[in-house]
Amino acid sequence: MTTTIRTAPTGTGVGMAPVVPTTSALTPLGIDEVRITDGFWADRQRVNGSATLPHIEHWLEREGWLGNFDRAAAGTLPAGRRGREFSDSEVYKYLEAVAWEIGRLGGDDALEARFRAVVARVAAAQEADGYLNTRFGRPGQGERWSDLEWGHELYCLGHLFQAAVARERTDPGGDDGLLGIATRAADLVCDVFGADGIQSVCGHAEVEVGLAELGRVTGRQRYVEQASLFVERRGNGVLADIEWGRSYFQDDVPIRQAQALRGHAVRANYLAAGATDVAVEHGDAGLLDALRGQWDRTIARRTYLTGGQGSHHQDEAFGEDFELPSDRAYSETCAGIASIMFSWRLLIEDRDVRYADHIERVLYNVLATSPSADGTAFFYANTLHQRTPGESSPDDEVSPRASSSERAPWFDVACCPPNVARTMASLSSLLATSDDGGVQIHQFATSTIDTVVAGGRLRLELETAYPRAGVVTLRIVEAPDTSVTLSLRVPSWAEDARIVVRPAEGGTEERAVAPGYADVERGFAAGDVLELAFSVRPRVTRPDPRIDAIRGSVAVERGPEVYCVESLDLPGGDDALGRIELVAGTAPVEQEDGRLAVELRSRPVSDGPWPYREGDAQPSGGDTFTATIAPYHSWAERGPSTMRVWIPTA
Amino acid sequence: MTTTIRTAPTGTGVGMAPVVPTTSALTPLGIDEVRITDGFWADRQRVNGSATLPHIEHWLEREGWLGNFDRAAAGTLPAGRRGREFSDSEVYKYLEAVAWEIGRLGGDDALEARFRAVVARVAAAQEADGYLNTRFGRPGQGERWSDLEWGHELYCLGHLFQAAVARERTDPGGDDGLLGIATRAADLVCDVFGADGIQSVCGHAEVEVGLAELGRVTGRQRYVEQASLFVERRGNGVLADIEWGRSYFQDDVPIRQAQALRGHAVRANYLAAGATDVAVEHGDAGLLDALRGQWDRTIARRTYLTGGQGSHHQDEAFGEDFELPSDRAYSETCAGIASIMFSWRLLIEDRDVRYADHIERVLYNVLATSPSADGTAFFYANTLHQRTPGESSPDDEVSPRASSSERAPWFDVACCPPNVARTMASLSSLLATSDDGGVQIHQFATSTIDTVVAGGRLRLELETAYPRAGVVTLRIVEAPDTSVTLSLRVPSWAEDARIVVRPAEGGTEERAVAPGYADVERGFAAGDVLELAFSVRPRVTRPDPRIDAIRGSVAVERGPEVYCVESLDLPGGDDALGRIELVAGTAPVEQEDGRLAVELRSRPVSDGPWPYREGDAQPSGGDTFTATIAPYHSWAERGPSTMRVWIPTA
Repeated sequence: MTTTIRTAPTGTGVGMAPVVPTTSALTPLGIDEVRITDGFWADRQRVNGSATLPHIEHWLEREGWLGNFDRAAAGTLPAGRRGREFSDSEVYKYLEAVAWEIGRLGGDDALEARFRAVVARVAAAQEADGYLNTRFGRPGQGERWSDLEWGHELYCLGHLFQAAVARERTDPGGDDGLLGIATRAADLVCDVFGADGIQSVCGHAEVEVGLAELGRVTGRQRYVEQASLFVERRGNGVLADIEWGRSYFQDDVPIRQAQALRGHAVRANYLAAGATDVAVEHGDAGLLDALRGQWDRTIARRTYLTGGQGSHHQDEAFGEDFELPSDRAYSETCAGIASIMFSWRLLIEDRDVRYADHIERVLYNVLATSPSADGTAFFYANTLHQRTPGESSPDDEVSPRASSSERAPWFDVACCPPNVARTMASLSSLLATSDDGGVQIHQFATSTIDTVVAGGRLRLELETAYPRAGVVTLRIVEAPDTSVTLSLRVPSWAEDARIVVRPAEGGTEERAVAPGYADVERGFAAGDVLELAFSVRPRVTRPDPRIDAIRGSVAVERGPEVYCVESLDLPGGDDALGRIELVAGTAPVEQEDGRLAVELRSRPVSDGPWPYREGDAQPSGGDTFTATIAPYHSWAERGPSTMRVWIPTA
Repeated sequence: MTTTIRTAPTGTGVGMAPVVPTTSALTPLGIDEVRITDGFWADRQRVNGSATLPHIEHWLEREGWLGNFDRAAAGTLPAGRRGREFSDSEVYKYLEAVAWEIGRLGGDDALEARFRAVVARVAAAQEADGYLNTRFGRPGQGERWSDLEWGHELYCLGHLFQAAVARERTDPGGDDGLLGIATRAADLVCDVFGADGIQSVCGHAEVEVGLAELGRVTGRQRYVEQASLFVERRGNGVLADIEWGRSYFQDDVPIRQAQALRGHAVRANYLAAGATDVAVEHGDAGLLDALRGQWDRTIARRTYLTGGQGSHHQDEAFGEDFELPSDRAYSETCAGIASIMFSWRLLIEDRDVRYADHIERVLYNVLATSPSADGTAFFYANTLHQRTPGESSPDDEVSPRASSSERAPWFDVACCPPNVARTMASLSSLLATSDDGGVQIHQFATSTIDTVVAGGRLRLELETAYPRAGVVTLRIVEAPDTSVTLSLRVPSWAEDARIVVRPAEGGTEERAVAPGYADVERGFAAGDVLELAFSVRPRVTRPDPRIDAIRGSVAVERGPEVYCVESLDLPGGDDALGRIELVAGTAPVEQEDGRLAVELRSRPVSDGPWPYREGDAQPSGGDTFTATIAPYHSWAERGPSTMRVWIPTA
């Protein structure tokens, strides 16, 4: 797929990316500067544009969530309002996704027309003072800001702001009006919730990231300060107590004092992302340290092997430390995306490879898992253990169940599909950054990079079969005259990593590199080649013994991908999955298609009247056989099955 | 404590028990026939009467749930209505508990006055056609029966019927009016929901058991038939679909086709209990077989070691087969009680010891666990693993949290306290039954039995230090002239069980007996003694390997009691609980106070940045030490702590 850049000449510094801090250690390269051209993510970006975006617009229309804006403009609300209290936000996330997609494609007349049509409907619903929400404020509706715990008004506006930021960054100074809608609403928020205003916050964090970025893109510091007020107010019990406690919306402990992310996993990560934005803009080292500490503990004790977060179905929340059941792992798709948002902000501030490692883990095992191969059905929750085959969701039915064991086309709470779409469309913004001295490659995809570094143009072609192979080839197409540092991430699990420099003029330099960033500093010239190579052999991974739910089990990983066993690949049907053990001392064997062969044993089980008994452990003997396991992100593509990531060992 | 029997002369057949089928293999002995006089359960019955009942009435008044009836009578509803949609039912469960307590005490003037005062307030709220509910049917409220999924109207009436049954059985023909209130409401239910009426059911089963027993006590078959209609209608999708699926209220599969209990664990067991009543009254072998099968599978695959049921917090529901996480085990107190109700009905129909074994397990490990020693705070959920110390609930605060890790005085949803109270007050009805040939002892407590068997009076004195000791002594005080069979339950886990007959006239017969019922048939005379003895040595119990959440762990049981480790008994504080292992090959050692000493190891853990790693299992070495463990039902009595039932092994 060839694309041309429509706006924002290379290196203008418009920053065609979701996150562009005023200052940070690393500057994100925009989606105009990094283009994914082939491979794992190119395929998914193509499906996202061609199938997922039309699918989402269809459902927004069909469910009446777009129509709510028309009814607002016509003055016929609340009669006939459709959807949950946060349905406006799905329209905004769709707009954000479309804005990035137009930017990614370098323009698309049909998509542009659809974008403008939706913006016009949103615009017509905005009230004279900037207020915009289809659920509150009219006769027969709740009053504005009357239900901060559950009303999601500020949450919805946060997504509006992110959409406007995406549009302004991909079509600077454009005439569609979305930025004006956003700033009018943001001004109202500042008036109402400012230092002398309502001393509370929204039950669902999100407006913080939206305000911070809107402040960055418009240069209006007022928005950043409003984000800061929201960040600092929360945690002081400003919201009402609820059944699950104020930790649900992070109103239990002030953010500077919290030890780990807790409560609703999406809210917690959105808040942490917004707090990072505020801390970076303020140069607030104390707040940044608190956030780093929360990230560390959350990753060390509250994160699934897939990078997924959130153990509880009931409140979509983190569990306690090491409470990470595979059964009913919630691992909401949106929580994964939110965790990327938080991690990315720390990465560009700290240049610490651990953030990039985690982002990659989430990309391959949460973001890539949610959508079906055809891009029109989605996992909302991402369990690590499916005990009974799911029921297929009909193509034309809304799924009420976040715990659906099959991907579903749409949900009553449909946060995940448009969140996937906006992340996929803007994905190349997570691949690379620059600083004064060079460029850093954080994620591997066949792609082109075209930016300005050290006063000169730097054009790179990156080629890789990753994650199938652990070789990344970086060809310099054009480079500044001065010395430049190219840094390539070496993942934490990478073994035998070596970097080879093959200058165009001949000669080869090779050296071993450790996990972290492998830096190559030199005067590069067109035709120079860097090659990073490391092993992606399968790894058998064990859990910390404090994660009780998976004691005595192992998982198989290969490169960034977590693998899983599906009952479709086992003799004995769905129940067989409950009896398997990985045969000790055997290693997974690679197959040509990226799947792996493992040696399993089907242990005998006795169906007694009571599943607990005195005495020695039941014998572990049983027939051994070879089975195929596949990347977790591909599970449930072949129809209902049972599945597990963690495999018991003898 | 000495008591005198106020009503119902011994052996009149009034059946002073919650469940009195028209015919069944075994006839329950009433609370007038079996009196618990000392020991474990006598203590708890005493606390229930002296502390729990006043505590409940205080909270019903304070929360305004009793006041709702006054407002209904005054015509001032819906203004000022307090509590959830099912709050009426807590008043009815309280009335049931008080009725049993008055019966247990053989009369109590003060309690009688309180009982009548509450009945009068309820009576005043009943409408002319028999309808009775404070939440529906008035201007400004939902219409009657307009929200069968969530409205709980029939559920509330079911508890009213059970209260009326309790009263009529303990005060036959009494003049308080409760039975009339119940039958007027029941007649209305039959009119509205009969064969030609509304073809639906209540979202929460309960009216079925209420109607069946009301039919039994009044002889009105119409009520039993209405119960049957409700039982058969459910499962055909008569209720609306909801987020968690129709299985939540057992409306997914007709009861004759279901394989196991599923969905909301209280609803599932209440329904199964009511269905058993209907099947027994109809002599419906097919329905009984279906229920036995569901009981079998539920016990074999969906029940915690404690006998508790329900794995999910979100929907208070059963998980899939073998989905029994210790973390956040829900095991609602009411689900345990409901499981006793179902099991008891099968026991008196089938005389199968497995039902009695399960009832005992739930009595000692769920019913006895919920209330605090002083009877004024309660566990709603009964987790098997507490990772962080709970926060103490203030004595005067309503707890919104079912997952509270501390017992709480009251809840927004306060089903459990009055359910505990009615079960405790009527507990002696679960101890013994009779049939044409004799008496069966199902549970062991120091008690007196006084009934009529084989045409003659049979009076027994049972003495035991159970569960501390495995010796039960049964002294015959008076016996019929004919031969009688006395059957004593030998629990499934009992070892070396022997029964000794010591006739008054001298001589001793002794024989080994196997788990099941040990029958002794002979012509008994006053002074004869039977002694059942078996070992209650501590047992180390392992789980079925399909229960993933507790793989590699063991639990300690002793007699009917499950034990647990509390951090208060460990060196190293609350975190120590995450590091302990039971030292292989060591056996728990009995201490004088019923607690046990176990050999534990504190394994080293390394706090890395990521809790999953390639390579061999972490070493299991570490300091060993002796720790004390105690019965699970006593946990959290000494203040906040962490706790676990399942202990990892090396």
